[in-house]
Amino acid sequence: MNYPFLMLSNNRKKRDEIFKELDSLQQRDFSFSSGHILGSMCTQPHPIAHEAYIRFLETNLGDPELCPGTKEIESRFIAFISKLLHAPKTAVGQIVSGGTEGNITAIWIAKQLSGKHDVVLPESAHFSFQKIASLMDMKLMEVPLTNDYIMDIQQMKKKIHKDTAAVIGIAGSTELGAIDPIPEMSEICTDEHLFFHVDAAFGGFVIPFLKELRYKVPDFDFQLKGVCSVSIDSHKMGFSAIPLGTLMIRQRQWLDCISVESPYISSEKQSGILGTRSGAPVAAAYAVARYLGHTGYRNMVKSCMDVTKYTEEQITELGLSPVIKPTMNVLGVKLKKPSRIVKKLFEQGWRVNKVDRLSCIRLVLMPQITKQIIDEFIPVLQKTCEEEGEL
Amino acid sequence: MNYPFLMLSNNRKKRDEIFKELDSLQQRDFSFSSGHILGSMCTQPHPIAHEAYIRFLETNLGDPELCPGTKEIESRFIAFISKLLHAPKTAVGQIVSGGTEGNITAIWIAKQLSGKHDVVLPESAHFSFQKIASLMDMKLMEVPLTNDYIMDIQQMKKKIHKDTAAVIGIAGSTELGAIDPIPEMSEICTDEHLFFHVDAAFGGFVIPFLKELRYKVPDFDFQLKGVCSVSIDSHKMGFSAIPLGTLMIRQRQWLDCISVESPYISSEKQSGILGTRSGAPVAAAYAVARYLGHTGYRNMVKSCMDVTKYTEEQITELGLSPVIKPTMNVLGVKLKKPSRIVKKLFEQGWRVNKVDRLSCIRLVLMPQITKQIIDEFIPVLQKTCEEEGEL
Repeated sequence: MNYPFLMLSNNRKKRDEIFKELDSLQQRDFSFSSGHILGSMCTQPHPIAHEAYIRFLETNLGDPELCPGTKEIESRFIAFISKLLHAPKTAVGQIVSGGTEGNITAIWIAKQLSGKHDVVLPESAHFSFQKIASLMDMKLMEVPLTNDYIMDIQQMKKKIHKDTAAVIGIAGSTELGAIDPIPEMSEICTDEHLFFHVDAAFGGFVIPFLKELRYKVPDFDFQLKGVCSVSIDSHKMGFSAIPLGTLMIRQRQWLDCISVESPYISSEKQSGILGTRSGAPVAAAYAVARYLGHTGYRNMVKSCMDVTKYTEEQITELGLSPVIKPTMNVLGVKLKKPSRIVKKLFEQGWRVNKVDRLSCIRLVLMPQITKQIIDEFIPVLQKTCEEEGEL
Repeated sequence: MNYPFLMLSNNRKKRDEIFKELDSLQQRDFSFSSGHILGSMCTQPHPIAHEAYIRFLETNLGDPELCPGTKEIESRFIAFISKLLHAPKTAVGQIVSGGTEGNITAIWIAKQLSGKHDVVLPESAHFSFQKIASLMDMKLMEVPLTNDYIMDIQQMKKKIHKDTAAVIGIAGSTELGAIDPIPEMSEICTDEHLFFHVDAAFGGFVIPFLKELRYKVPDFDFQLKGVCSVSIDSHKMGFSAIPLGTLMIRQRQWLDCISVESPYISSEKQSGILGTRSGAPVAAAYAVARYLGHTGYRNMVKSCMDVTKYTEEQITELGLSPVIKPTMNVLGVKLKKPSRIVKKLFEQGWRVNKVDRLSCIRLVLMPQITKQIIDEFIPVLQKTCEEEGEL
């Protein structure tokens, strides 16, 4: 760029000063590459995602005729997700910034289609539904869980009534990675003509591969005819960069009810919540999906599940117990005072998260977590638990 | 990264194939650096924004204890915005993805504080308010404009009533860059105890500098005691990268009414709409703000205004008329059939946008648009207008 008012060439010193400041602040962050983040559902983006991202930084998919090429990349990426989730030809994909926006968008559609405001969901649903309740004046009808920490079907039936706008199923709970009985829920929603949204923000990039690896997991996607929408995040197990999720929607025309006219930009209508949105995370997610492909993701999931099993064994050997046998690469570990342990581990440079509701800490065995890292972590956990009277 | 399952080293060929595909698609996009995008309120990010962005790609400010350093950068950036907008000490800044999320968040607060659902806004308000109406079941009370295309105060008074949750003022309309009479609106809202939100997504990085350059523009920010919140975008005239806006809110405690408990992550509560969000655009916006500083932005605005004046003169010389004398670097040009002209210009490789409502095309003279580019554009516009019977 050659803008006289910028005086770029004169300001190398200023630039260096700014990056010294940024670098010094960045030192305080935990990094994924250290392996010490054991409590996040994100990871560092795959190198190819990184490379693609920076090439598309200036694109704005909110104004699609400015960037028909990037728009085509978006279409190809949505086609990949569509295939992964067995979406029918009538389906449409809406790019979102992540699981929260995916959930909001789904409920927005359900509200518009039904004119109703009650949402039936399991107690394990993500806290974004609390936002939805407040933002959109929806009423949450929480259903207790079974002993396996999944939606209790009999209890769910009792909550459904004439004002129900939507039913929510979780395919990979944020707490434990547990998968609700989506097939049974799908049948009930079909019978009752209810909008059924599946939150697979985490599990969407895990369950399809678990099935191929012969783990016993229920169906969760558009193969079940009652499933109306599925939310799936690329910046979680899709190994790409924030902010990128996709909401797949069974019927293209359902988007119309959340579309508004969009003067001043190149398209006549705009659907979805946000306006201006970068093409960079879309290009990144597409690049990594193309690069890894089905086989690459399956190998990744296999590797994560191996580390999860290993961690579970190590935890058990210490004398601690998992909350449930892990369904995917999320491991809840029962503790008396999880807050104390989280704090103590933090002081020693390890970052794990707690779930107070279940009195546990939660480890997420993302791709960057290897058995070597677990071998480093276990003695620290053991010592901490001993000091705090957990062992 | 050294993950065995990735087999990175084996796949240089695959990587090259993917980037060949991405590059070839990117060829179809318009680029800001070509100068041929005359209709967007975005621009290519400043080089320093670009450089900062890529360094913070893996950070997640939705989980702030993972990245205390990046969180500190966010605080410093908000302090910059706070000062720019003369926010009081009681104020708080909420980072958002852009103007649309800024507006949604402001109305969400107003709805929670008032328990009401009517929004009084000028006809020139951005189409994101149509989304808000649908998403949040708000009723929009549109106020006609004066001959200067700004909120008509007398008409506005008539629309205010007992169910009014918020009044919206636009400081730099998307159509024409016009600024509503914010001081008068502020007084009325103070008297009526109404939540007053100012949408300065575009104008927030323009008006403060116009004032210093002695352009006659009204006050629009927290210096007016009735202003409750201001939305301002860094990815527009802040010269940074998508997605980055800030919603400044007069009273910190107002955030509480849109906060929810956030188990599984490191903070106890999360406010705002989105969950996972990257620190990269925040670091980018901070870096460019630090680099340009007040003086750099003022020089930039001066340069944009010079080009705007030049363009207005050239347009007038052709025999075309501006819709209004430009308030900022946005120029509406009256046409009989703006759609035809937009289409014909598009076919010749120029991208301008139209505003059907005002029967005009809209040029946005962003930093990348120089007088030389205008000199290239004017003959194309002239020829097109002659062929289409506009001249």
